[in-house]
Amino acid sequence: MLMETINKICAGNVRLASRLIRALEDKLPHARARLKKLFPRTGKSFIIGITGSPGAGKSTLTDALIAEMRKLSKTVGVLAVDPTSPFSGGAILGDRVRMLRHAEDEGVFIRSLATRGALGGLSQAVGDAIHVMEAMGKDIIIVETVGIGQQEIDIIHHAHSVIVVMVPGMGDEIQTMKAGILEIADVFAINKADRAGAKQLHTELASLLNSTKLSPGAWRPPIVMIGNLYEPATFIEQMAELAQKVFDHYAYLQESGQMGKRMERKAMMELNDALRACIMEPIIANLTASGELQRIAEKIRKLEIDPYSVAEEISKRVLK
Amino acid sequence: MLMETINKICAGNVRLASRLIRALEDKLPHARARLKKLFPRTGKSFIIGITGSPGAGKSTLTDALIAEMRKLSKTVGVLAVDPTSPFSGGAILGDRVRMLRHAEDEGVFIRSLATRGALGGLSQAVGDAIHVMEAMGKDIIIVETVGIGQQEIDIIHHAHSVIVVMVPGMGDEIQTMKAGILEIADVFAINKADRAGAKQLHTELASLLNSTKLSPGAWRPPIVMIGNLYEPATFIEQMAELAQKVFDHYAYLQESGQMGKRMERKAMMELNDALRACIMEPIIANLTASGELQRIAEKIRKLEIDPYSVAEEISKRVLK
Repeated sequence: MLMETINKICAGNVRLASRLIRALEDKLPHARARLKKLFPRTGKSFIIGITGSPGAGKSTLTDALIAEMRKLSKTVGVLAVDPTSPFSGGAILGDRVRMLRHAEDEGVFIRSLATRGALGGLSQAVGDAIHVMEAMGKDIIIVETVGIGQQEIDIIHHAHSVIVVMVPGMGDEIQTMKAGILEIADVFAINKADRAGAKQLHTELASLLNSTKLSPGAWRPPIVMIGNLYEPATFIEQMAELAQKVFDHYAYLQESGQMGKRMERKAMMELNDALRACIMEPIIANLTASGELQRIAEKIRKLEIDPYSVAEEISKRVLK
Repeated sequence: MLMETINKICAGNVRLASRLIRALEDKLPHARARLKKLFPRTGKSFIIGITGSPGAGKSTLTDALIAEMRKLSKTVGVLAVDPTSPFSGGAILGDRVRMLRHAEDEGVFIRSLATRGALGGLSQAVGDAIHVMEAMGKDIIIVETVGIGQQEIDIIHHAHSVIVVMVPGMGDEIQTMKAGILEIADVFAINKADRAGAKQLHTELASLLNSTKLSPGAWRPPIVMIGNLYEPATFIEQMAELAQKVFDHYAYLQESGQMGKRMERKAMMELNDALRACIMEPIIANLTASGELQRIAEKIRKLEIDPYSVAEEISKRVLK
């Protein structure tokens, strides 16, 4: 019964895969057992991350990238990550409606994930869902997320290649950027490039990239201008270029041996997520069930005890 | 020696307080012992959270709010939280330069905190720094953060009252908002209210608030329009109104008994943070020191074992 489900998911069964992703997100007890069985069949997909500020047009690019990948006869899984955000959440969802045009295409599988619970776990849910899509045999998996905050940066580390989408006039100007952006971007896309300021953004970004010292043979992130939504032919050409740059980066990772390092970072992160799930979550669940968590919080609130002293005491009690 | 330091911090010694906040952020061993000693002297400050999208003008409002609080002879601590963001980080820092005009004022203590490490801990660092400022005897503590992502929402839960700053034309339009914003906002500030679209934003927000069913006697978040940077007198008037609304909310929390609930949520979060620090961090540190973490990550990468099976095995080994 279990193996039958596993085999069906690996054969691409959308209904069972969706159900498993949801069950993993909800941390249902049977879901993890299934994921363990799927695990040996993962690891063959190319995972592309797309990130950028809210309103940068990530969903539009994701949508066009799906079309591009389908032209190359690649099967595609898309994971739209929606951090519980009172500011941008809805807007993202709105944009994503456009992607639904791919829903009829059997070669495309789209799921969205949202944050649940206060204990984090979004990165874990993303990692789990990627594994399910890998087991389904998707050639390409696109993970789209809003690129602000540590949690979102963690999420993007699940990808092999990361596209950072920028737009002129959105506070993305180079002088306001941190060095951090260079650490996560493998390919830059300047979207809405027909807007005022796009050229300047390109010049500044290029000069920043040129002034960055790289070790010999290192990857220098290319910049792709995308901006003629009203000239479909140009837009499609630009998207093909973006797709090509991403494949170039993938080839670079494999030829340079950098792929190993990326995969190790990814494995380390998944291990961290799993340790949290297997150690912290049961401890908190037990403390909550017994009512102790509530009682301790009350004492902290009354300044009768400090959080660290309690936590040290609990750690002595639960750890060997 | 320890108590001497503690007493000096409680007397408002800026140099020692800054050093302790930095040591807590860096998780230096002696820092936690000091925090425990400080803990009984905390809990008397009014903590105000300010959040909103990048570019909404939070730092400008924080700066003006500091001035407003000083007029009322309140001492002020400011914690500028800077999530490691490749997109907005630098911009925030730039705006914050303005706040430095308060640096000469002995009644104002400004510190900034940034994300460190992959394991999270920013919320914990914020909680710790707040306690230091409370122990210093600050009447008001303002925590300013960018309001996108779960981690930032966690951070804002350290506050008693939360100001959500919105601006017209920044994708903050009501139809793009989630219900979540109503859950975190106690006071709305519509900034740059002289811009086109400000009135509409106000109308939409007001109608959303009016259509929200509240239990009898519940707090209905007021909306303050702020938008005449070029008319200093009006701006100062508006900022005084904003400060008053925040004090009104504080009074409401105390009179309604809601303060207890907020403080409990805060205590629960601090306990979670402390448990992570006292349980997960040592486990990861041990696995890293022995080289086991690296070896396991390698096995995961080669698909020889899945993260959950390893994590379960480790949990059996380390938990009683």
